[in-house]
Amino acid sequence: MIFKDVYFLGSDNAVHRGDIAVRDGVIVYTGERAPVGDYGEVIEGKPRLVLPGFVNAHCHVPMTLLRGYGEGLPLDRWLYERIFPFEAEMTEEDVYWGSLVGIAEMLTSGVTSFTDMYSFCGSVCRAVELSGIKANVSRGLLSLDGGALRDSQGFYETEQLFADWNGAADGRIIADASIHAEYTSHPEFVRELAGFARSRDAGIHIHLSETRKEHNECVERHNMTPTQYFEHCGVFESRVTAAHCVHVTGEDMALLARHKATAAHCPTSNLKLGSGIAPVPAMIKTGVAVALGTDGASSNNNLNMLEEIHLAALIHSGVAEDSAILPPGETLQLAARNGALSQGRENTGVIDAGYKADFAVLSLDSLHLQPLHDILTGAVYAAQSGDVEMTVVDGKILYRDNRVQTFDVREAVEKATAAAHRIARLLP
Amino acid sequence: MIFKDVYFLGSDNAVHRGDIAVRDGVIVYTGERAPVGDYGEVIEGKPRLVLPGFVNAHCHVPMTLLRGYGEGLPLDRWLYERIFPFEAEMTEEDVYWGSLVGIAEMLTSGVTSFTDMYSFCGSVCRAVELSGIKANVSRGLLSLDGGALRDSQGFYETEQLFADWNGAADGRIIADASIHAEYTSHPEFVRELAGFARSRDAGIHIHLSETRKEHNECVERHNMTPTQYFEHCGVFESRVTAAHCVHVTGEDMALLARHKATAAHCPTSNLKLGSGIAPVPAMIKTGVAVALGTDGASSNNNLNMLEEIHLAALIHSGVAEDSAILPPGETLQLAARNGALSQGRENTGVIDAGYKADFAVLSLDSLHLQPLHDILTGAVYAAQSGDVEMTVVDGKILYRDNRVQTFDVREAVEKATAAAHRIARLLP
Repeated sequence: MIFKDVYFLGSDNAVHRGDIAVRDGVIVYTGERAPVGDYGEVIEGKPRLVLPGFVNAHCHVPMTLLRGYGEGLPLDRWLYERIFPFEAEMTEEDVYWGSLVGIAEMLTSGVTSFTDMYSFCGSVCRAVELSGIKANVSRGLLSLDGGALRDSQGFYETEQLFADWNGAADGRIIADASIHAEYTSHPEFVRELAGFARSRDAGIHIHLSETRKEHNECVERHNMTPTQYFEHCGVFESRVTAAHCVHVTGEDMALLARHKATAAHCPTSNLKLGSGIAPVPAMIKTGVAVALGTDGASSNNNLNMLEEIHLAALIHSGVAEDSAILPPGETLQLAARNGALSQGRENTGVIDAGYKADFAVLSLDSLHLQPLHDILTGAVYAAQSGDVEMTVVDGKILYRDNRVQTFDVREAVEKATAAAHRIARLLP
Repeated sequence: MIFKDVYFLGSDNAVHRGDIAVRDGVIVYTGERAPVGDYGEVIEGKPRLVLPGFVNAHCHVPMTLLRGYGEGLPLDRWLYERIFPFEAEMTEEDVYWGSLVGIAEMLTSGVTSFTDMYSFCGSVCRAVELSGIKANVSRGLLSLDGGALRDSQGFYETEQLFADWNGAADGRIIADASIHAEYTSHPEFVRELAGFARSRDAGIHIHLSETRKEHNECVERHNMTPTQYFEHCGVFESRVTAAHCVHVTGEDMALLARHKATAAHCPTSNLKLGSGIAPVPAMIKTGVAVALGTDGASSNNNLNMLEEIHLAALIHSGVAEDSAILPPGETLQLAARNGALSQGRENTGVIDAGYKADFAVLSLDSLHLQPLHDILTGAVYAAQSGDVEMTVVDGKILYRDNRVQTFDVREAVEKATAAAHRIARLLP
């Protein structure tokens, strides 16, 4: 495929105008005018901005089934009285349909890859495979009863995930290891999981210092912050995606930077659940790689990465009382390149020759973008997911003109809605 | 018109299901099933949520022409090197087309009325009249040279505005008085303007404690906070809309509450410009009426009230680390009823018999709302402006199915874009 005479975000985080040519899923040319040749489909003729595809760096995609369920309760009652009982009723098939609806929604907002933590990973992977999106999938491990890793059902499922799905779908699926959080396991369990991850050269996906309570209770329990605790258990010897990082200390940030861990910043979820506001500018200054995520739909309540980009670009300016603290181009880098690197996908997240052709294509003719003095601030501050005209993964158009191209979204919504209502009816 | 079997937000801030019947621009019935009769157009057949129309309580609608202009500079250089020189070149016609584009955009996100402060008010009013929207329009007055009110061009224009437009367009247009801010005028000027407002029984629109610098410099200058200063000058004896209120003190809040002033909270603008985060929960607790606004497009960068609702519902939970601090129903009340009251429109902003038929109608079948366990949190946390299917003012459908019904938006965009580019080319 070739995009002719479009605007695109270059590797310098600035907007350029010209052509982007793609062969076999890889960008072969970016610049003023591509060499003459047959690239397949020619996309031209209206104002477009091509961005590197967004990477949703922290998600629980099957939780799309719980969007809006049990709202209005305090956080702990919401979790224990609503979310956990609902999840206990979810089947493998429910997870599949919930995942497909969530993936469809991500495709409508320009997401080309996501990092997920949940159970029934086979169902998540089946949905990823069908849809054409990329994902790093992990089974979130817990040991609430103090049991050993080798005896846990979750670890059994993790080994299955690695056996069945790692590298599947032409490498679109990567299996990661995962520890849910410090407070839901014990040090030996974490240490063994870290060893497993090292033995597979796999990444590890964790929740880290999401709430003040979690952070402080860890300090009381272990005389270590959650970040120090995970380091102590050997977690940071692997490629780590640490979701939230709202209450990390200066020392924690230095530690995360030293280990090249990625902080997956989830601004909507952190605000909605009353967790707080992550110190993103300080993390970036300390050298921590920051990516962006939506978290699950039940704490957001959508999977719209343009909203996370918008919010991330806004909120830290307000907190710091400094309008220049996180410029639009840098925010887009968090959403794409940093996300791709957090997934171990070095060849993704940049619009330049040799990189994978993963794009979020924005139409620039919406009313709310006019007059268009500045394309980059238009995309970050004014655009809405409805402006996403196309989502492209490995050179294939997965979403275009309001239609997901790879599966029947209507069927997925019907099945997911039926599942959601079936479960809700079972519960008090 | 009659909406049959819809969801709607009742005066109790909860969602109900049933019919809403309208005659002569006024709601005549809400409840399970309207009495049989000919109400004109029947709207039924798909899942919809009818909300009271949103009131954008602080805007500079002609600044739509400056959307994205001069971005990336620090605030003072942005204003003095970019915004002011651009505005100096704007003509009456430019303001008209810029206003129409801004109004069109507001209609697409469910806005039925807005409160504006700018110059060339005749052009703004002509656009309001044509479009069918409601507006409280004011000429923002300054006295940078220390001159008297009676000698100022702005006051001359204010008197013209009142003579030509107050109560025009079947009462849709209300003329307000306006002082731009404490730091751009002097006490005698403000006192005289306050006297003018009292003599006309008019409202007053001001900027108040938007930035820390503005607040602190006022205290140094007058040994009073901006709120105390404006009280001292008699401003609060009228109906006041005070935009921003980011740095108000506890005493300021008590004073605003005592005088029944409205704080127009503009979360996006305050974040983007690095002004800070207004203490909205504290204001509400103190009894201040809080409404929501977008500010001008140049500091937002759109006029999407659903985004302001979303952001207001999220951000204060994060700051307070309390997810229940501003519930969805209350946030919608800020966006509609409180805005209407701030405009002196007592009969607007509630879906109940006897109130004006001003509605934002959301379609509930979007992918990002499924499964729909909870309609209210769906509307506040997950919905996007693309979900606004209809905007209704005084019982007339002004926007429907992606089309503004009352004027040619394409022409307005072309004229506004030409004006914006003409002016940008004039400037260095």
